[in-house]
Amino acid sequence: DSGELRQVRYTLNNSLRPVEIAHLLDKSPPKERQLLWGLVNKDLEGDVLQHLGYDVQAEILSRMETREVLEITEGLDIDDMADLLQQLPERIMRELLQTMDIQNRTRVEQVLSYDEDTAGGLMNTDTVTIRPDITVETALRYIRRHKEIPDMTDSLFVVSRRDAYIGILPLTKLLVSDPDMLVREIMSTDIEPIEATMTDSEVAQLFEQHDLISAPVIDEDGKLLGRITIDDVVDVIREDADHSLMSMAGLGEDADTFAPLMRTTRNRAIWLGINLLTAFIASAVIGVFEDTIEKVVALAVLMPIVASMGGIAGSQTLTLVIRGQALGHVERSNIGWLLNRELVAGALNGLLWASVVAAVAIIWFQDIYIGGIIAAAIVINLIAGALAGTLLPIGLKAAGIDPALAGSVLLTTITDVVGFFAFLGLATYFYS
Amino acid sequence: DSGELRQVRYTLNNSLRPVEIAHLLDKSPPKERQLLWGLVNKDLEGDVLQHLGYDVQAEILSRMETREVLEITEGLDIDDMADLLQQLPERIMRELLQTMDIQNRTRVEQVLSYDEDTAGGLMNTDTVTIRPDITVETALRYIRRHKEIPDMTDSLFVVSRRDAYIGILPLTKLLVSDPDMLVREIMSTDIEPIEATMTDSEVAQLFEQHDLISAPVIDEDGKLLGRITIDDVVDVIREDADHSLMSMAGLGEDADTFAPLMRTTRNRAIWLGINLLTAFIASAVIGVFEDTIEKVVALAVLMPIVASMGGIAGSQTLTLVIRGQALGHVERSNIGWLLNRELVAGALNGLLWASVVAAVAIIWFQDIYIGGIIAAAIVINLIAGALAGTLLPIGLKAAGIDPALAGSVLLTTITDVVGFFAFLGLATYFYS
Repeated sequence: DSGELRQVRYTLNNSLRPVEIAHLLDKSPPKERQLLWGLVNKDLEGDVLQHLGYDVQAEILSRMETREVLEITEGLDIDDMADLLQQLPERIMRELLQTMDIQNRTRVEQVLSYDEDTAGGLMNTDTVTIRPDITVETALRYIRRHKEIPDMTDSLFVVSRRDAYIGILPLTKLLVSDPDMLVREIMSTDIEPIEATMTDSEVAQLFEQHDLISAPVIDEDGKLLGRITIDDVVDVIREDADHSLMSMAGLGEDADTFAPLMRTTRNRAIWLGINLLTAFIASAVIGVFEDTIEKVVALAVLMPIVASMGGIAGSQTLTLVIRGQALGHVERSNIGWLLNRELVAGALNGLLWASVVAAVAIIWFQDIYIGGIIAAAIVINLIAGALAGTLLPIGLKAAGIDPALAGSVLLTTITDVVGFFAFLGLATYFYS
Repeated sequence: DSGELRQVRYTLNNSLRPVEIAHLLDKSPPKERQLLWGLVNKDLEGDVLQHLGYDVQAEILSRMETREVLEITEGLDIDDMADLLQQLPERIMRELLQTMDIQNRTRVEQVLSYDEDTAGGLMNTDTVTIRPDITVETALRYIRRHKEIPDMTDSLFVVSRRDAYIGILPLTKLLVSDPDMLVREIMSTDIEPIEATMTDSEVAQLFEQHDLISAPVIDEDGKLLGRITIDDVVDVIREDADHSLMSMAGLGEDADTFAPLMRTTRNRAIWLGINLLTAFIASAVIGVFEDTIEKVVALAVLMPIVASMGGIAGSQTLTLVIRGQALGHVERSNIGWLLNRELVAGALNGLLWASVVAAVAIIWFQDIYIGGIIAAAIVINLIAGALAGTLLPIGLKAAGIDPALAGSVLLTTITDVVGFFAFLGLATYFYS
């Protein structure tokens, strides 16, 4: 019904803001998403696009022609444009850059010259700058000549004639200062400017620690390149926080909730395959003790408890350490204390729950040996879990491997192997 | 060595900012933490305290006397003071409020009257307000009379004579407007003020969607109560994002990485106990099939693979849905599509990996039956994982239970039970 479609198109474009349209697209299954995107007005497309999840952006961009991409990205902020361009294949990106006017191209290329995950990749070039040797009154008159000041401008940046960064002048300060004072006298120099090569996580930490709204970005010579604003930092914070959660389940933090079936199936298949390998390792350990299990079937019944308790305890330690790493809490100086506490906590909880499990096992199977064996195995496995949960993320990080991604698979492998080996090994010793 | 201590004290108080001192305390084991806290200058304590993790705050506050708490919280913002007071026992909080001057007490009590997790609990009362019927020039002169404008002030709030909220006037707008214009003519009314009862997650979404730096908070009659600033919203965003990660491992999002041994042991014990219960349920299922396992020991060797594959696949779905809920992506209208995709993706991956496992099992145990049985069980369990991973978080949320906390335990219970039952049940049927 085309009348209904017209209605939807009208509502979409006239009563929703671009960010709300983007949210609607993000939470729509593929077909509806494509349909809705087709209804978005041309002049809103760029704005909508920049608010979409990365995976959704990439999907939509991949279906566009170069000319279209150029049209819709025209009005965007330099940093948002650079973000979008980075989603495109190299060839198309080059083509697009060629078609831009020289000023914009230079700016975009400057942002693109820095890695996406650095201050340079995060910055925008829309700074408002002033000289240090003018009066407050002159500064106010100069500002009034602007038709509009860019969003998120809480401070002016004070620069030398050669664009070297000198300090910042908060608007609130400017507004309450004596008109005859010099900018130099009221500007603030206690915030260090951000080097363009700083990682985005460090930038986020800086913003959080100093409650910043915007901050200047400089190159290695101290020249002002642009500024970073809190709205982009908030995105970094959310992505960083999402990262651990999603990685630990083998999902990318950019994962589109409504990705098409085949993409989902393919992505999941890899993770399942890796985990299958670790499951086979555990099975191989059990296989070693087939004869013992044949004699005492109760072992087969109880063995998952040993593996599971070690896995759960280890995961708790692992999660705590991974979050501690993300917050910058875990470092060389305190690993010793942390490892020690985790080991003792693991041993104590091991003793507590081992006695419960032992009691149940003895009553269930009327066999006092099996109680002692499972108790010992649980204590051993909880200690192994504490050890692996603490040392794995630290070792992985030192090796440049993402602990959130590799940590949980490796941890379960260790607790499965140790759990089965301890339990069935002890049983083999005592029952033969 | 007291000379060395003096050195540390000097460095701590003179070369670190309060937020950096807080970070240092956050990442110190209990004894060092207590020692360092003792070295912090009295006049910095309040500022340091408000930047600490919640658990660490509570620990330090619990060792303080009422008088001390009063002293160190004196200079804090109203919202930060309210945050700290909420960590104290009711009786001490009342005592503290009694000792405050009437103006401060009224303000703090207003913030305290709203739940911690609402806009009212998040707001500060340091607004700068103006009337709509004055000129830009008058407004500028009025502002100049302030010695200092509160941090994070990007806008003035326009209010009626009775303090009813009318609109906002961004400072950037004020700076570029014609001095003869009226505030009413240049103010902006397209940002809806925030109701004090709105949840903090909704507030965060609003800030993210509209790229806000500060926003007005009103009561049910439209009266301006205060404002929320982006720095507090960033904390909410980080906590919300941390919440899922930590809850899925049975840890609180406020958990202190360096909590003392006994507290850690106690907190972990509960989670291990809950998981032990689910492990016993899985064991009970295996126990039903003891006779079959006795006949075919290979079953014991392979059965963890079935449970593990279902658990991993289910966890991926669960994590995706929990994050989708947090982002506001998953709702009634698209659950159907999501469930359908997860089921088909589960079935497809089930078929893929089931054939791999079947091939390995047949070669390993030289038994064609066991290959077919494990293949069927894996497909069944991956479908069960998809079903549980999608529907559990939705059902739990509808029931008012936190999906991140309860979801993973319930999911593993389901995939363990279904996995063992399908595998051993089929085996019992075919081998008897």
